[in-house]
This record gives sequence, C-alpha cells and structure tokens, in this order.
Amino acid sequence: MRSLNSDASSNLKTARQKLGLHPKAPIVEHDDLAERQSLLWSKVRLVLREPFAEFWGVFIMVMFGNGSVAQVLLSAGQETAPGKMGFGAYSQISWGWALGVMLGIYVAGDSGAYLNPAITFSSCLYRKVPWRRFPMYFVAQVLGGFVASGVVYANYINAINRVEGDGIRTVPPSSTATAPIFCTYPQDFMTRTSMFFSEFIASTLLMFVIFALKDNTNNGVGKGDKWFPLALFFLIYGLGACFGWETGYAINLARDFGPRLMSYILGYGTEVWSAGGYYFWVPMVAPFLGCAFGGFLYDVFVYTGESPINTPWLGMKRIIMPREAIKARREHHRRHKEEGMV
Amino acid sequence: MRSLNSDASSNLKTARQKLGLHPKAPIVEHDDLAERQSLLWSKVRLVLREPFAEFWGVFIMVMFGNGSVAQVLLSAGQETAPGKMGFGAYSQISWGWALGVMLGIYVAGDSGAYLNPAITFSSCLYRKVPWRRFPMYFVAQVLGGFVASGVVYANYINAINRVEGDGIRTVPPSSTATAPIFCTYPQDFMTRTSMFFSEFIASTLLMFVIFALKDNTNNGVGKGDKWFPLALFFLIYGLGACFGWETGYAINLARDFGPRLMSYILGYGTEVWSAGGYYFWVPMVAPFLGCAFGGFLYDVFVYTGESPINTPWLGMKRIIMPREAIKARREHHRRHKEEGMV
Amino acid sequence: MRSLNSDASSNLKTARQKLGLHPKAPIVEHDDLAERQSLLWSKVRLVLREPFAEFWGVFIMVMFGNGSVAQVLLSAGQETAPGKMGFGAYSQISWGWALGVMLGIYVAGDSGAYLNPAITFSSCLYRKVPWRRFPMYFVAQVLGGFVASGVVYANYINAINRVEGDGIRTVPPSSTATAPIFCTYPQDFMTRTSMFFSEFIASTLLMFVIFALKDNTNNGVGKGDKWFPLALFFLIYGLGACFGWETGYAINLARDFGPRLMSYILGYGTEVWSAGGYYFWVPMVAPFLGCAFGGFLYDVFVYTGESPINTPWLGMKRIIMPREAIKARREHHRRHKEEGMV
Amino acid sequence: MRSLNSDASSNLKTARQKLGLHPKAPIVEHDDLAERQSLLWSKVRLVLREPFAEFWGVFIMVMFGNGSVAQVLLSAGQETAPGKMGFGAYSQISWGWALGVMLGIYVAGDSGAYLNPAITFSSCLYRKVPWRRFPMYFVAQVLGGFVASGVVYANYINAINRVEGDGIRTVPPSSTATAPIFCTYPQDFMTRTSMFFSEFIASTLLMFVIFALKDNTNNGVGKGDKWFPLALFFLIYGLGACFGWETGYAINLARDFGPRLMSYILGYGTEVWSAGGYYFWVPMVAPFLGCAFGGFLYDVFVYTGESPINTPWLGMKRIIMPREAIKARREHHRRHKEEGMV
Repeated sequence: MRSLNSDASSNLKTARQKLGLHPKAPIVEHDDLAERQSLLWSKVRLVLREPFAEFWGVFIMVMFGNGSVAQVLLSAGQETAPGKMGFGAYSQISWGWALGVMLGIYVAGDSGAYLNPAITFSSCLYRKVPWRRFPMYFVAQVLGGFVASGVVYANYINAINRVEGDGIRTVPPSSTATAPIFCTYPQDFMTRTSMFFSEFIASTLLMFVIFALKDNTNNGVGKGDKWFPLALFFLIYGLGACFGWETGYAINLARDFGPRLMSYILGYGTEVWSAGGYYFWVPMVAPFLGCAFGGFLYDVFVYTGESPINTPWLGMKRIIMPREAIKARREHHRRHKEEGMV
Repeated sequence: MRSLNSDASSNLKTARQKLGLHPKAPIVEHDDLAERQSLLWSKVRLVLREPFAEFWGVFIMVMFGNGSVAQVLLSAGQETAPGKMGFGAYSQISWGWALGVMLGIYVAGDSGAYLNPAITFSSCLYRKVPWRRFPMYFVAQVLGGFVASGVVYANYINAINRVEGDGIRTVPPSSTATAPIFCTYPQDFMTRTSMFFSEFIASTLLMFVIFALKDNTNNGVGKGDKWFPLALFFLIYGLGACFGWETGYAINLARDFGPRLMSYILGYGTEVWSAGGYYFWVPMVAPFLGCAFGGFLYDVFVYTGESPINTPWLGMKRIIMPREAIKARREHHRRHKEEGMV
Repeated sequence: MRSLNSDASSNLKTARQKLGLHPKAPIVEHDDLAERQSLLWSKVRLVLREPFAEFWGVFIMVMFGNGSVAQVLLSAGQETAPGKMGFGAYSQISWGWALGVMLGIYVAGDSGAYLNPAITFSSCLYRKVPWRRFPMYFVAQVLGGFVASGVVYANYINAINRVEGDGIRTVPPSSTATAPIFCTYPQDFMTRTSMFFSEFIASTLLMFVIFALKDNTNNGVGKGDKWFPLALFFLIYGLGACFGWETGYAINLARDFGPRLMSYILGYGTEVWSAGGYYFWVPMVAPFLGCAFGGFLYDVFVYTGESPINTPWLGMKRIIMPREAIKARREHHRRHKEEGMV
Repeated sequence: MRSLNSDASSNLKTARQKLGLHPKAPIVEHDDLAERQSLLWSKVRLVLREPFAEFWGVFIMVMFGNGSVAQVLLSAGQETAPGKMGFGAYSQISWGWALGVMLGIYVAGDSGAYLNPAITFSSCLYRKVPWRRFPMYFVAQVLGGFVASGVVYANYINAINRVEGDGIRTVPPSSTATAPIFCTYPQDFMTRTSMFFSEFIASTLLMFVIFALKDNTNNGVGKGDKWFPLALFFLIYGLGACFGWETGYAINLARDFGPRLMSYILGYGTEVWSAGGYYFWVPMVAPFLGCAFGGFLYDVFVYTGESPINTPWLGMKRIIMPREAIKARREHHRRHKEEGMV
C-alpha cells in the first residue's frame, strides 16, 4: 500500500514548486498515501492544497461577512420581525465579519490562514514566508471573496429586489443602495486623506495585534494556536465596532475587490468603481501599507525573534552591501536544506 | 462486585444491536458495573444511551432556541421592561439558538452530539457512522424537539394568551402570530426556489465548517474537542445573524418538524403545514441535501482523511464493480474486529 | 518554620467541624503554615474558608447582576448617552448576570462555587456533599447577596432619587419602580401556577446542564474545570435571554431573598413582600424543587456515576430496608477514612 | 555568534536598573543574542522592554476604547447606517474597552500587562513588585493613552467636525460635546461623593477579581494565564455594562488622564479640567484607593499566599519593630540572590 510511486511524487513536487508552493504539501504524514496520489483529483488537491485552503477560508469569511450586511441592511425596520425592529442592527455586522474570520481560520488551517493578501504580504516581508508564495495565495484569496459574494447575492436576490425594485441595483448615495452588502463605500463627509488614513490605521492595528498573537517570544501571557481564532474574533469585532463606520473597515483586498468585481458583473454599474471619488483603490492599497507599518511597529518595539528589522540598518544592509547579501542568502539556503523547508 | 453477569451483558448487547447501536455502550469502563445492570432502569439506560443523549441534547437546544424566540416575540415593545424596549431584539434569538446548541453538545457528549438528522446523515455518508444508527438517532432527535417545544409552550402560555387572545393561536401572516416561536415560516417575498436555496446554503455552511472543526488532519490551527462547543456557538450565531432572516435558518428537521408537530397538536391549526405554500417540507428536505453537499465540498477540496470521496470514482466503484465492494466490505469487517468497533 | 502547632491545628479542625465543614480547609499544602495559624485572623480565615469563598462569589455575582439592572433601568431612554438610547437595553442584563456568575465562580474556587443554595442542595442530594455543609453555605450565600445589593444601592442612590424622587422608593406596578434593581417581580399577566412553573423550569435547566458540565463520565466532548466558568456564562445568559422575562429568572434564593431583604430595610416598604400576590416565596422555593428535578432527570437519563438514583429503587431501599441502610452507611464511613474526606 | 559581549551586557543591566527595571530583560533566552545587542536600537529595546510593552498595551486598549466611543457617539442616529440606527449603541462601548484590554494584554505579555497604574500600585503593595518599577511603568502607561487618543482624534477628525462644526470642540453639558470620546465626564445628577464612590467601587471590583484570577492558591476551578485575557474581557465588559453609566468607569489614570491631556492640547479648552466641578482628579485618585481596597479585601478574606496582610499586624509590624523589618529585608535579599530575581 505504501509502495511510494516516486515518479508521481516528484511530479507533484515540481507542480507545486511551479506554483510557488513548498514542494511538500502540508498534509498529515499517513494521509499522504501513494495509492491516493494515483487518483487524478487527489493529485490536483495535493498540488493546490494551500490555495484551496485560502479559497475556502476567505469564502467562509465573506459568506458570513457579506451575509450579515445583507440581513441587517435589507431587513432594516421590518415590523414583523420578532422584536419588531428588523433582523439585526449594525453590531450584528461586527459579529458577522468577526465570526466569519474565526471560522475561516479553522477552515484554512493548512495554509497558515492568512485570508488577506496584506497579511500574506507582511508575513513575506517580516516572517520569511517566501515571496513566490504570494501570487497563488493572492489569486486564491480574491477568488474566494469573488465566489462567496456571488452566492450571497443568489441567496438574497428576492430581498434585494424587494428593497431596490426588480432589476434595479444602486450604489450609495442612493437611499435604497444595496451595493454596500458586497464591498465598502466611505461615508460622504470623509476627505480622501481621512479615508486612506482610516483604512491604514485599521490595517496597522490588525497586523500589530496578529504579530503579537503569533509571537512565541512574547511571554508572560499564555497564547498559542488554540486561542488564535477566538482572539481574531475579538480583534475583527473591535475593528468593526471602533473603526468600522467611516470606511467600512475593508482592511483586505480579497474581501473588498473580489466582491466589488462580482457586484459589477451582477449589474451594479460602473458606480461600484467611481463611487466616493473612485474610492475602490483605497481598500486595495491602504491595507498593504497599513499592515506593513503595523508589522514594522511590532518588530521595532516588541519583537525579539528573527526579523529584518532586527538586523543592522533594519535589513537594508543586504541591499547596500552585496557581500552581506550573499552571506545572508547562503545562510538562508543552508537552513532550508537542514530543515527540509523552503 | 465485579462478577460480570455475562448473560445480562450479552442481552444488553443484543438489544442495542437490534436498535442499530454499537453493542457496547459508550460508557466509562468502571461505571459499567454488573451490579447496576441488574437494575431494570440501568439496563434500559445502557441500551438507550445514545438515543437518550441525543434526546436531551436536542431538548436543551430547543428549550433555549424556542425560548428565545418566545421571549423576544411576545415581549416586543413592552415599555415596562428595563430599558423600555422589550426583553430582547432579534439578535437575542441568535444567542438563544447558538448557546442552545453549545449546551446541547455538552449534554449529548456520549452520542457524538449530532443533534440534527442531517448531520447524522452526512456522518454516515462520509465518516463511516453505520447507517443502521440513523433511525434511532432520528427518532430521539425529533422527540427531543417535540417535547421541548411543548415545555416552552407550557411556560409561555399566559404570554401567548396575552398577545393572541385566550385560546386563539395563529400562524403568519397573522399580525399576532405566535406560531414562529416553535418552527420556521418563510418571509412572504420569497419564491419557492429561494426558500429552498436559503435553507440549502445555510446547511452547506453548517456541515462544511463542522467537518473542518472535526478534521484532525487539518493542521496548522489548534482545534480539538474542547473547542468544538464554543466554535459551534459562533457558527450557529453566524447562521442566525447572516442567513436567519429569509427562512428562519431551521437547517434541522428535528428542530423544525418536532416543534411544528407539537404546535399543530397544541391547536395552531392546519396552517402550520399549509403556510408559505406548504413550506413545511423545505426545512425537512433541504438540510439533508445541503449538509450532504457541504460534506462533499469539504471532502473534495480539503479533507485528506478516509472518505468515499477520496477513493476512485468518488466511492462509486463499489457500486459498479462488485469485487471492489466485496473487498471493501471485508476490509471493513476486519478493522471492526481489531478495534472492537462497529 | 514548619513546627506544626498541633494543638492549634486540632482546634481549627474542631471549629470547622462544628460549622459543618470538612476538618481540613481546602488550601494549598505549603500555604497551610503553622506560623500563620498563630495569627488570629488567619485562623478565622482558615475556619471560614468556604463560607468566605461563597460569600465573595455571590457578592461579585450580585454586584454585576444588580448593577446591570440598575444601569439599564435607571438610564433608560437617556438622550445624552452615546448612541442616544440610554446605557444598555435588556440584553445587557443577561450579560450582567452571566458574567457575574462566571467571575463569581473564579472567585469562589475554594468552596466549589455553588453560589446558590439550590445547587448546594442538589449536590447534597445527588453528589454526596454532606448535608451538614448546607447551613453554613446557605448563610454565606444569602449574606453575599444581601451585602452586595446594599453596595449597589449606595452606588446608584443619586440615580434612584432622580428617577423616583428624593426618598421615594416604589415597587412594581409603579411606573417609576426601582425595586426590580434588587430582586425579581413577576409580569402582571402571569398566573400563580405559571410563575412557579417559570422559575421551576429555569432551575431545572440550570441544574441539568451544570450536572452535565460537571460529569466526568460524560465522554465524547471535552469538558473540564477550565471551561466551566465560561460555559456557565452561556448558560446563565441563555436563561436570561430565553426564560428571563416572565419572572426575572431568580433561580436562586441567595440572589433574590438577600437583596429583597436589603431593599425592604432600605425603605421600599412591605410591598417588596406583598407585590405580585406575595410572590417573594416563589423564587425561594421553586429553585430548590427545580434544581432537584433537574438533577433527578440528569441522573435518571444520563449519569452513570454514583448517585442515589443509580441504586435499587432510586436509593429508597435504604429507607425501607434498614439492613441496606446500615450497610451503605458502613461503606460510606470506610471510604471516608481511606480518602481522608468527609 | 554567542561570544557574549559582557561589557555591553553589563551596561544594559546598569541602564535597566537605573530605570527601576529588573537587570535582566524578560526575553526568551536564545533571542538575547550578543550580536543583536551591538545594534543600538536593539540595545534601547532591551533596556526599555517593559515600558515598551506597557506603552503598546495601553495604546491598543485606548485605540479600541476611545475608538468605540467615537464611533457610537458620532454616528448616533444616522439613518443611512445598515439597520438605520447608527453604527452601534452604548453596549458597543463595553465591547470596545473590554476587547481593547484583552488585546492589550496579549500585546503587553512581557511586562505583566498591568496597563493601569493603579494595578501596578496594588501589585507593588501586595504582590512584591518592587516599588522602583512603578515610575517607568507609570510613564509608559500614561504615554500610551496619550498617543493613542491622538491617533483616534486624527482618525475621526472629519466626523467630529461634522457633529460639532469646523474647529468647534466642546465638553459636556454641551449637546454636541465630543470630549467624552477621549476621557470620562460624570452624569450631571451625581454628587461629588457619589462620583468618587462610583469610581472607587468599580476599581475595587477590578482589583478583587484580577487578584482572584491571578491567584494560583485559589484551587477548585481551573484558571491559568491562558484564560486571563478572556476573563478580563468579561470583567471589563461587566464594569462597563453595570457600573459604566455614572462616571464612565475610567478606573485607570492612564486611560483617563492621558487622553484628557491630549484633548486639552487638541483644543477642547480648559473645560476638560473644570467640567463636573473639576472632576478630572477623581479618576486619577479613586482608582488607586479602590484597587488598594480591592486587593486588601481579597488578601484579608481569600488569599493564602504571601502578602503583607498575611503577616502579623497586617504587615505593620515591620514599621513598628525595626528588628522585624531588618529580618524581613535580609530574607528578601537572600531570596533574590537564590532566584536571580529582584
């Protein structure tokens, strides 16, 4: 049963490497059976293991996130609701996104559960995740958000028709706008700078706290992987309750651009791009800069593990002094061989 | 004290097997005393251990679930409440069902805590729970919902009389309808297809996330039985807050049909069946299909453990090729003997 | 330093036994220093260890519980609140009592953290807690509720004056009644039977779930002391959100009678006793019967550990057949000597 | 790589001791690399490790705390919100501060995560934290609150302008006052004594429960560091929901004075000091007295570990009898040498 088909195995490794993934899939040893590898789909699944995990993690996150906005927005003020005040207020949106992230992390355990290109980005920058992983993760994350928002639309199509009118689909500041179900639109009193700042600072908090939660050198208070999903619930809830008003706390390209594209395709018009003074690029760019800054702050002020910040000239030495760079690269490769990790 | 009465013991095993249960009750070794087995009731309890567990698990779940709807619906707008706005809004129903499931799982630890025929169904389909367990679990689960809803009715009978008038019991779209306390009725703007889709997709999410939470091969993020009840709190809360409006997120025959039957018996009239265009069958059928689909998605895209999906032709080979089926069955039996498990 | 003053030590034991407590205080071994026992107060504290724990546990519970009612009730509708709708709605009272119980359990770790005479009662009945412990626990619990409600009154005296008028203190159905801050008053549409039933069924749920959470023989789902306080949060929250309207879910003599007595002393008049048709005795009696019934159900249907229910004739044999009783008593004593436990 | 530069190392120790910190930074052994110590910033970070931790812990706490007040207060009643009732009610402020404290504790793991000068104070008083640590912790904590409130202001500046008018900044009782975003102002019906009492009693509860949660001699209920941040969530939530109305539950100089100073600098005028009858000093003084009293109660009635309360004359003997003091001091030093701790 375990007569390893080493050709098949090495094919898999090659395929995974081409996609930028670690040659060995993150899979429990005794499940990695040669027998199953002879099944075509099992091969595909092994090759695409982390992208699948990120896809489904983001899918779950956006299902609950977009779903909560849909329910609160579309049922607002409904008198036949138990309690007579609709099926949820704004706070339920904080719940939706927060538990969506928590459950998404449980689902995406095999890929690191970034669920956010900006977090992958910062992890590449500061935590030695290889840059070549970024593209596949990015694609999987955006696709997860794109598909999930389509399913949410399909689920709420009757209710959207009821609020907007059959076939009418509008974007804020329309008073019946349902586009905010899918992606974020800023409050109308915001200046461009403030929009950017709001997304930036929320992303900074996101990354700073995640790095603290993942930091095994931060002792004194018990942490650990088991607590991570629950702590993220509180973190995302907090961002929604404390910094969610002005720009909708996208803080994630996959959660904003994916559903925005879907809403465009579904007929919300070019206003999905032009609304708020072509706001759409802010939640694409600000999270990367905010997360990078949050990671920077954490590594500068708290982190004592290995980080480019904790090297001479904040890691810039390599760029300026080629010899240092070569030395670092050599050390890098040596370690990989030892640990069987790339 | 431990002179095992082996006749009694084998009678118990026979009785349990006839009910489709594992011959050995899931009971801590040193509690399985022969002495107690001589007590009639202890025998009954050993024989019916898992059905009792499922009954009480669903009972607790429905007590809190139906109880929360009753309190919110019946007290809506009451000015003498502290806070002057009744005793809870819709979000408290999300709380009620979510914590009801969580506490039900704690109660039903000995049976696997499915609390939902559709989840038992998917576990038979994908996780090797023997099909012959299904009927007894089904009966216990439905009875649990049936009895609990009767107790909730008894508890709230004064308040129901106050809202509806003495002896009057109505079903939506009546403006004083109290039938939604017990089982789900769809929103009036929903098409039949959308009703079905809403229950289907919520059940898909339910099963997909539960399989992720129960998946020991899904590494990277700490999970474990200890976290399962709390994670289910968030999952059920999310389904209520994000997909609970349109059709009331029944996603469980035991939680919907059991109380519906009770409400029929209690005098809500045949409208409990005919309301919403004979909607009652949707929350009976859709959860099975939705959970099956959710399990399918998880096993296709993420799961690497043993699953019919992870075999040639998605497990269909057995059906088509008798020799494969016989081989599989033999392997199946051999393992049972080794593990003492059926 | 450890020259044990055995006279002092045996005095302590005698004192504790007279109070119905275990001769040995539940205290970490190396803290039980003879040196400190020479301090008068340390002696007192050792003697009264469990009563102190219960007192403070109930104190914390009632501080948060009564405090939450006070804040929600007194600030209702205040327009200058952030959010313009007062400082909390009914759901915040569910939060207050639930987290009060949770934190009270953390505080009262040394006494078993019953915090409720009805739970002590059921534990004596079904879980071998000696009956002679009951009186001291009872006194400590009631005192805890009594004192805490006085502190809450002192804290909110300005606000009570503002709502009721200086020196005016009223009880429902007065429209400015502030007495419900301290103890429970039933809704006016309730019949006496329903009032009793409501408290009874809530107490039944309370005890049933607590026995499940404390049941180490209930396998399959991870439990454990560490999860107990959090699970109790959800349990108490659920009782408030699902069964808290009709009679205010006292389910606890210490939480209801203690503060009721305090409110009587503080000048709310004899109406605190006569309101609701002399309702005050219901939350004193119903919890005992409800908890006893909840424990009965759990032991009959689920529990397989040692319980009088799991003996011939549900433990009645002892009463009817003296020889059985003597045998049981002898076994009881033998075990105590072995385990050094009473 | 590990050729320890012992000069550098001893310089660090000296620098830390001058600041009142333990000579050895709380840092995972193998991260304490001599190589990195040659980097100037790494040196600074080692020297200021605990102050940095406290700074960022308070920063995170106040970001979420002030942020939640800002969002609820500024968006109150906004009809374009999903749900049509603004972006959160008062309960969301309980969430904000509670999760802010929880996440702050995760961040500040290396310093003990006091996040509150009054808690540092009580820990010095009762738990042997050296008094010379107090000043540096104090400065770091206040700075954290000061800086965070400035960032919150920057984030919400457009929204503040919208509510108050451009450049107008007011303090209660102004009907458009936005100063309560930053620090606390008492309700207008409160007497001075009641204001003080409200802050005092909330601080007492805070310290009493924290000492219970940190008490390893409090057995019976599982505790542990891993549960501490979550338990603090519930504790702070409870203080907000049950004792947050009258004076805004500052219970922390760093959280109140820091942001108050910032709001003064930002142009809210001298009314930030004079409002409520120069209320500002109450949340500076009351928390120290309240926390000291809470710690006193816990140590008198529950704690059996080492505490000045658990010594003759409540620890006063040292003051009165010099010989006792000398003996105690000698014992103190001996232990330090053994444990390498000061």
